[in-house]
Amino acid sequence: MKTISENACFGGTQGVYSHGSEATGGDMTFGLFLPAEAKEGPVPVLWYLSGLTCTHENAMTKAGAQAHAAEQGIALIFPDTSPRGDGVADDDAFDLGKGAGFYVDATQDPWAPNFRMWTYVTEELPKLVFDSFALDPERQAITGHSMGGHGALTAAMRLPGRFRSVSAFSAICNPTESDWGQKQFAAYLGEDRDAWAAHDATRLMDEKGFDGPMLLDTGTADQFYDLLRPEALAAAIARRRQQATLRLQPGYDHSYFFVSSFIGEHVDFHAEALYA
Amino acid sequence: MKTISENACFGGTQGVYSHGSEATGGDMTFGLFLPAEAKEGPVPVLWYLSGLTCTHENAMTKAGAQAHAAEQGIALIFPDTSPRGDGVADDDAFDLGKGAGFYVDATQDPWAPNFRMWTYVTEELPKLVFDSFALDPERQAITGHSMGGHGALTAAMRLPGRFRSVSAFSAICNPTESDWGQKQFAAYLGEDRDAWAAHDATRLMDEKGFDGPMLLDTGTADQFYDLLRPEALAAAIARRRQQATLRLQPGYDHSYFFVSSFIGEHVDFHAEALYA
Repeated sequence: MKTISENACFGGTQGVYSHGSEATGGDMTFGLFLPAEAKEGPVPVLWYLSGLTCTHENAMTKAGAQAHAAEQGIALIFPDTSPRGDGVADDDAFDLGKGAGFYVDATQDPWAPNFRMWTYVTEELPKLVFDSFALDPERQAITGHSMGGHGALTAAMRLPGRFRSVSAFSAICNPTESDWGQKQFAAYLGEDRDAWAAHDATRLMDEKGFDGPMLLDTGTADQFYDLLRPEALAAAIARRRQQATLRLQPGYDHSYFFVSSFIGEHVDFHAEALYA
Repeated sequence: MKTISENACFGGTQGVYSHGSEATGGDMTFGLFLPAEAKEGPVPVLWYLSGLTCTHENAMTKAGAQAHAAEQGIALIFPDTSPRGDGVADDDAFDLGKGAGFYVDATQDPWAPNFRMWTYVTEELPKLVFDSFALDPERQAITGHSMGGHGALTAAMRLPGRFRSVSAFSAICNPTESDWGQKQFAAYLGEDRDAWAAHDATRLMDEKGFDGPMLLDTGTADQFYDLLRPEALAAAIARRRQQATLRLQPGYDHSYFFVSSFIGEHVDFHAEALYA
């Protein structure tokens, strides 16, 4: 693991690190905010999964999450959204290939060799950061934005016991029924739709649900609203009687101005579960 | 109008009053909490519509709302849930007839002469209380429980401009598709289902929505959950992009122990809109 940068930040440290990744077959970069409390011992962790076109950097610089995480003594991890590098397959579209890993393990060419973001984010990167930093694996929570909201929700439901709470901003809620999902799943996972179901938050809600609190925010002026399909997940949550708070925030769009407006409430929501 | 009782309560007055009602063809009773501020001038109003089997008294004595309303300087009105008296039609079932007005104007015999709770709650009683007490008609909000949640939601959507905010506990969300609704609408309104649509919160959400904030709480251990159909309204809210917060509260049931646990948050939610 290589340190790219470390900056003092709200009494703690905002670091950026890179490392060779077996899962994705190349170098990966991630951001990690450690609050001051990490000098004394392991601290709770909030994972932040980013959306289409993002790297490890967008949320780290634009969400304003560190102020709230510092107040609560919680670490933040910002993984990248896809494999990177010259040898990695890509597509001209912004929503396929680099910056668009969709948190799945691709089984189809040309994506299969590198696009294994599910394994990277749920296995390889956790092992690395818990081995290397003062982080408490017993106290994890997860959030994300858009494609990252999809990643957070699917990870939380597919890994029972790992995360105490889950939240999302502008999440892609039902990708198997959306152009944000069908296109990528067909490319990465193939045409067999049975393989898609495990990566659809609405279908996972109907099958499994989540054993903990859930907070979902979506802006009513989101320019991608129809692609997100929050109505499908809202109905599934109510059908399942899932402990949850769903909020439609009037006038907010899909941008980081929306995320930054409510990230404080999300960090506080997770803190309540992490310190319970 | 006759004063039945007036008790000092949180620095204000909890009153109970009765009056002859044209709408329902008999005497009606209601509860009114006036905060101390009403001595100085008109105060904002939060209507509380009650559920099946309730009178004006249940919420007044069991919801614990006055403490919060007094803190916010807001009046509370607790109407009855049906016409009363010996000459009024009834049914052996607890969910039809007395205590089960469903906030509609009946058109069918034997209900039509008295069961006109829509007109009573939205026209006659408002006129009476705004004429008689220091209440500000420009600052009204509405909430309710179960059948009263249905009443609050349908009134808020059908009377645009009247209420600044709406909330509900354990609301009957989609009565045209539930045994809590179909039975009563068939009895009160007849078999023509077109007449039912105006009293279905989910259908009104799809048609009209509400121009203001909405807060909905339902307990995941609600023993009548399947009759409430919150999943239908949740999906309609998301489809419409309605400004809203929907919460599924883990472990809570249909009782006033649930209402009292969250009434403070509801009063504060309405206060924000009433004092905006």
